Amino acid sequence: METENTVKPMDLYKVHVAVVLKGSRDPEGETILRDVVLAGGINYVAKVVSGKYLSFTVKSSNGEEAVKLVTNLCRDLRIFNPTVHKLIVLGVEYGGSSGC
Amino acid sequence: METENTVKPMDLYKVHVAVVLKGSRDPEGETILRDVVLAGGINYVAKVVSGKYLSFTVKSSNGEEAVKLVTNLCRDLRIFNPTVHKLIVLGVEYGGSSGC
Repeated sequence: METENTVKPMDLYKVHVAVVLKGSRDPEGETILRDVVLAGGINYVAKVVSGKYLSFTVKSSNGEEAVKLVTNLCRDLRIFNPTVHKLIVLGVEYGGSSGC
Repeated sequence: METENTVKPMDLYKVHVAVVLKGSRDPEGETILRDVVLAGGINYVAKVVSGKYLSFTVKSSNGEEAVKLVTNLCRDLRIFNPTVHKLIVLGVEYGGSSGC
């Protein structure tokens, strides 16, 4: 029989984020567009943005909290530099129970 | 009056993708987890995966086609190396009419 003090098991959530440059210039994205995509004969691409992809699998009680935990840790641990970068949250997916 | 030959204007879609390592090892992700996250005193992160983020803004008639265009161009232009990398489609968003 469960008691009232039973600890709710935390679930795992995978939060997908990207760190991209803040300003209007993105030399890497521009180069991929010009020297790879357009030079490769593809004419339906208007813009390419490049950046760093990271996913964090975190223990959390819900997806919204997982996103908050990840955005906070990225800011607090200087995973990105807020002066020149911005963090984009690309999505969160349920990753099963962590059993703890 | 519109004729039957009126060309449907194409819309712009932004497709978000990530290029990550295929195997079980991801030295960069492991280092971020060990030397940044855990060393920073954060104990709710189970895993970190690192990779390259790219977004492609493409002219397309719908989102599904936009994703197909981007995955094909990434494969054909060797944006990633299928021997060691895999491409993850993280999402697609509507980006307005291109007017052409």
